[in-house]
Amino acid sequence: MDKIKVAILGATGIVGQRFIERLAEHPWFKIEYLASSPESKGKKFRDAVKWVLNPELPEDIADIALGGSKADDVPDNVDIVFSALPSSVALDVELELAKRGFTVISNSSPLRLEADIPLINPEVNYDHMNLIELQHKKRGWRGVIIKNPNCTTAILTLSLAPILNLTNIEYLTITTMQSISGAGLKGLPAYLIYDNIIPYIENEEYKVKNETLKILSKLHNHRLIKPRFKIYVTATRVPVLDSHLEVVYLKLLKEVSLDEIIHELGRFSSLPQRLNLPTAPSKPIILRTEIDRPQPRLDRCAGNGMSIVLGRVESLDEEENILRYVVLGNNTVRGAAGNSILIAELYLKYYLGVI
Amino acid sequence: MDKIKVAILGATGIVGQRFIERLAEHPWFKIEYLASSPESKGKKFRDAVKWVLNPELPEDIADIALGGSKADDVPDNVDIVFSALPSSVALDVELELAKRGFTVISNSSPLRLEADIPLINPEVNYDHMNLIELQHKKRGWRGVIIKNPNCTTAILTLSLAPILNLTNIEYLTITTMQSISGAGLKGLPAYLIYDNIIPYIENEEYKVKNETLKILSKLHNHRLIKPRFKIYVTATRVPVLDSHLEVVYLKLLKEVSLDEIIHELGRFSSLPQRLNLPTAPSKPIILRTEIDRPQPRLDRCAGNGMSIVLGRVESLDEEENILRYVVLGNNTVRGAAGNSILIAELYLKYYLGVI
Amino acid sequence: MDKIKVAILGATGIVGQRFIERLAEHPWFKIEYLASSPESKGKKFRDAVKWVLNPELPEDIADIALGGSKADDVPDNVDIVFSALPSSVALDVELELAKRGFTVISNSSPLRLEADIPLINPEVNYDHMNLIELQHKKRGWRGVIIKNPNCTTAILTLSLAPILNLTNIEYLTITTMQSISGAGLKGLPAYLIYDNIIPYIENEEYKVKNETLKILSKLHNHRLIKPRFKIYVTATRVPVLDSHLEVVYLKLLKEVSLDEIIHELGRFSSLPQRLNLPTAPSKPIILRTEIDRPQPRLDRCAGNGMSIVLGRVESLDEEENILRYVVLGNNTVRGAAGNSILIAELYLKYYLGVI
Amino acid sequence: MDKIKVAILGATGIVGQRFIERLAEHPWFKIEYLASSPESKGKKFRDAVKWVLNPELPEDIADIALGGSKADDVPDNVDIVFSALPSSVALDVELELAKRGFTVISNSSPLRLEADIPLINPEVNYDHMNLIELQHKKRGWRGVIIKNPNCTTAILTLSLAPILNLTNIEYLTITTMQSISGAGLKGLPAYLIYDNIIPYIENEEYKVKNETLKILSKLHNHRLIKPRFKIYVTATRVPVLDSHLEVVYLKLLKEVSLDEIIHELGRFSSLPQRLNLPTAPSKPIILRTEIDRPQPRLDRCAGNGMSIVLGRVESLDEEENILRYVVLGNNTVRGAAGNSILIAELYLKYYLGVI
Repeated sequence: MDKIKVAILGATGIVGQRFIERLAEHPWFKIEYLASSPESKGKKFRDAVKWVLNPELPEDIADIALGGSKADDVPDNVDIVFSALPSSVALDVELELAKRGFTVISNSSPLRLEADIPLINPEVNYDHMNLIELQHKKRGWRGVIIKNPNCTTAILTLSLAPILNLTNIEYLTITTMQSISGAGLKGLPAYLIYDNIIPYIENEEYKVKNETLKILSKLHNHRLIKPRFKIYVTATRVPVLDSHLEVVYLKLLKEVSLDEIIHELGRFSSLPQRLNLPTAPSKPIILRTEIDRPQPRLDRCAGNGMSIVLGRVESLDEEENILRYVVLGNNTVRGAAGNSILIAELYLKYYLGVI
Repeated sequence: MDKIKVAILGATGIVGQRFIERLAEHPWFKIEYLASSPESKGKKFRDAVKWVLNPELPEDIADIALGGSKADDVPDNVDIVFSALPSSVALDVELELAKRGFTVISNSSPLRLEADIPLINPEVNYDHMNLIELQHKKRGWRGVIIKNPNCTTAILTLSLAPILNLTNIEYLTITTMQSISGAGLKGLPAYLIYDNIIPYIENEEYKVKNETLKILSKLHNHRLIKPRFKIYVTATRVPVLDSHLEVVYLKLLKEVSLDEIIHELGRFSSLPQRLNLPTAPSKPIILRTEIDRPQPRLDRCAGNGMSIVLGRVESLDEEENILRYVVLGNNTVRGAAGNSILIAELYLKYYLGVI
Repeated sequence: MDKIKVAILGATGIVGQRFIERLAEHPWFKIEYLASSPESKGKKFRDAVKWVLNPELPEDIADIALGGSKADDVPDNVDIVFSALPSSVALDVELELAKRGFTVISNSSPLRLEADIPLINPEVNYDHMNLIELQHKKRGWRGVIIKNPNCTTAILTLSLAPILNLTNIEYLTITTMQSISGAGLKGLPAYLIYDNIIPYIENEEYKVKNETLKILSKLHNHRLIKPRFKIYVTATRVPVLDSHLEVVYLKLLKEVSLDEIIHELGRFSSLPQRLNLPTAPSKPIILRTEIDRPQPRLDRCAGNGMSIVLGRVESLDEEENILRYVVLGNNTVRGAAGNSILIAELYLKYYLGVI
Repeated sequence: MDKIKVAILGATGIVGQRFIERLAEHPWFKIEYLASSPESKGKKFRDAVKWVLNPELPEDIADIALGGSKADDVPDNVDIVFSALPSSVALDVELELAKRGFTVISNSSPLRLEADIPLINPEVNYDHMNLIELQHKKRGWRGVIIKNPNCTTAILTLSLAPILNLTNIEYLTITTMQSISGAGLKGLPAYLIYDNIIPYIENEEYKVKNETLKILSKLHNHRLIKPRFKIYVTATRVPVLDSHLEVVYLKLLKEVSLDEIIHELGRFSSLPQRLNLPTAPSKPIILRTEIDRPQPRLDRCAGNGMSIVLGRVESLDEEENILRYVVLGNNTVRGAAGNSILIAELYLKYYLGVI
């Protein structure tokens, strides 16, 4: 087949670089268009980017001249637009692109909580893709906007999916330790975070709470029915380069044995695996039995960054059904670019059925 | 008055160095004896220690020749023995010293949970000092052993004290981010922790749970009555040099307004402050209102390392009475050497009344 | 005496904070005016600054309302203006201030190499202060501009002064490892420097070479006669918070025994010490004999940040007279704010003789 | 062909792990025997090792039971013994193994400077392999001992080789910034190096100087004729996980244009490339033209860790012929395990001609 032409907006940032890394050799997609900030328009990508990933920047990508990142700038022959735009500018551009008829798959936060915008973590709520019909009806545009969740939520909800197959929960308490890359390539000054922890990330706790509830909702007649449990979130920034670690406590609604939970976590697999999507990890959840795992430096590349890694799964209180685990995921891959690409694959094969 | 002669066992470690830093100019105490490992016996302190604190090693201390760290080695003219011995050797030495009649104030973990051994966080449970009578009766020795809590517990229980003045709690969930110095001067290889998090610290979760319950017990007829709430603990190691950060979630037993809690935290003061003990911080709890505090690098020296710093105090769920805060404390000062010294001061002035 | 009123321009940056830390309790000076970027004009200092130093921001300073940082904004009652302005805006403001008659003592780089602008490292070339006469004659203004050297140069030239008392040198080779704070509070993104080294700092090698030659020049009839040795510089950025480490190799013009050099380094003292200036460290050079010193974390506070610390002084080649040493200095103190303040003291007491 | 059976001594350390990573899928070699410390004898490798590399420990290797690391323990069917033993125990074991007839390729430092022991950096001095004849004659054993250089030297000498093709040098001044892994997996406590630099590494400066001179010697009638230039070395430890950065200044004996040098560096290739040895990088030297490269985090994987990366190549003084460059290499790969494996390949194909 001819490859599908994709654009990447926000291509020089850290998520943009992850898009390029994963699209450069993608079996279905071909990078057709790159854009970054207005100042870098016209420059060669190699001259505009501070490339920070370990695989070298592919030579053919390096030579692409950057286009503009306004909606009008994106050429018509592009099929899918991946957006890694900063939140401040994303909304207008993405809406305009959808009006122009593009399929926009976006890592930016605006619109994530809108009732007609699918917020997809592919293994968890692929069926929410069907909100697209509602979107078309309501917005009246030919295009599509699909969002991937914020990084912490992507990791969290994937870890919850198999457990919620066994029992509902009463409440969830989570403390996160989020890496530097989550603030963007140049978002966090070194002097502020080195030998330090910042126990606050703007808007993060709100996002984790509300995006989690949306993703875990049941879709019923094009409406999402939220689950009823409570979520208590504290988000912190720690001096680690990549991947977020999350300490999760659940009060389960009914008694489930630890063995059963571990069994369910270990065997978890979902539609992306069954469809054999190119970016789907063979094991979305990797369970470690060593007492001191997961660890960011050792586990951030698991499943090429698309698997989450769980450890320290313990029942802390059998009477009260308190379950605790620690989960780690690669924030710029599973929590951003990789997730977007997996959504694109899902959209084409599962929703449109064109591949 | 003549200064009271003290010994420090385990003097070359990081807690040992903190003892020296704070005892070198202490108004009541005079360092009489230093000991470290058997190999360093006889060496000058300056040649045996890798001094890592910012105030330079005082010259007169530097010239002291190290003695042995067996109980027999400690000279009779010593009044108080501060023990920063590693757990593996502490038990025998400390028991023997108490038999020989010494007052042992110890940072090591053995015996902390024994019913007749006071485990003291001075502002929180100074009255537990009265367990000494039970100890004398039960052990039949002339000496005394008093323990300070493990670092995380010292910080946690101090933060809980004012809240428990207002209401009991139903459960407490805590996730810690503990610094490198908590593993000792040479306890943690750099290659394992740099750009990494280790989500497990040996024995730590057990200690935090059980020491917290002991410290918060009510003393009644020489018996400790434990409080009934549940504690769920996850302890992690992060790449930060000094001070532990703890994210705490409390389910309060009854509704208390956030204002009231903040008021109580802000005005907290206790016996060590009233007695004006030399090592007591004027404000044991410092409340920060900035959204991104406490931070290890900025707050670890608060109150000369003896204050804890609280921030992000929020009611996460008014219906369920869920309170969340973040607390930071200097693990080798408030959580170790400084706490031991404050205990010694309390013992002399409050318990013995000799100063 | 009445305190001398000073202004600080660029007060919210890391050098600005160092100025405040050292001027808040200064025996001669009183902070009268603070300014930062145009956006923060009118704000209270506490609301405009991200205070990152360990001594808490003094309460009375915190409440000062920020003024503008244009030359016109500085009130007439200010006696001395300390400038920590970014290079891009410093030139115009400082020239204008001098025209208005202010004494400007500046940490910014423009004008440093001008023949009539004293570039002063107080212990090294206090006599260059006399270039002020040339400045007055040439510029025709009532004010004065005096510069402190760039951070690396301040440390380097102080270390060279005692050696040049013994012999000239043929060449100097230096490799620097410069800390994060040298790039300013927000100048260096964490993702770029953590677990990394950047072997290049913009303009730094040029500055070190040329400022060193200017500072070490002989003043003769209001002209500076440059020394004739060669300087080879490589500047790198390393993941360390504060203080620069410099590895220096000198080819001495004549044989001098290592003992003599060590003796001269150890006893070095200069005019600021003799005048007992408030900011002058009692020992400007601290010589360490341990094989593994100086170290940034242990030595950055030496002499309250105003001393440099030398170690590893060795003769690498007796035939060729190659001397090697490692020197460390606090870049934002000795290399910036502290140096400026010491210059101001020197100017008042030595040059003007008014104190 | 049947794969050649190899043993790895010191298999659990960081260099040992690098051996395993690179031998697990090697086209010529098969891991037959693993050994580590006496305490771990008999344990499965997975239980004895703290695996820290990003590619997961291969399952089949994980199940190998560790043998002893005495010379007698190594089974006769092993063809080549790779030694990553600590220096303190390496000497006796390696000598004994050679006496028993094994081919020992060793990363440990003892014997490196012996006249009859080849010290090989394959692209630089493959011909020194011929010292084996002298070794056989002198030692009278059937086995062979070949050493790879210390990590810093391996990187340095490879960078010098193309330059020495153009001109001799008069002196070489080098300052190194060496990573944590150079001290071994558990060799450097985190508290000592985080936010710090240690400007001294035991024995390192001696090794760099003398091993460099040996490797760059001319072999003449089984004798090595040392080059006559001077070497001045300062070795420091910095908080970086992997790869060493070296700042090198050369005084060239004759004028060579910078273009010529850059040309020679860029095209450098040697016998391992011509023989197409499995571990030989296609480009042993990668020249970067960006002003801020090489950087440890971005360049440590170049050529799968076997290439060195050069940047900042500049003529600092055209009159004096001073050349400066910065070079980076992966210390545990090019500087240790990878180098040893490349030596083994060279030995088999070039020296023995059996492959």
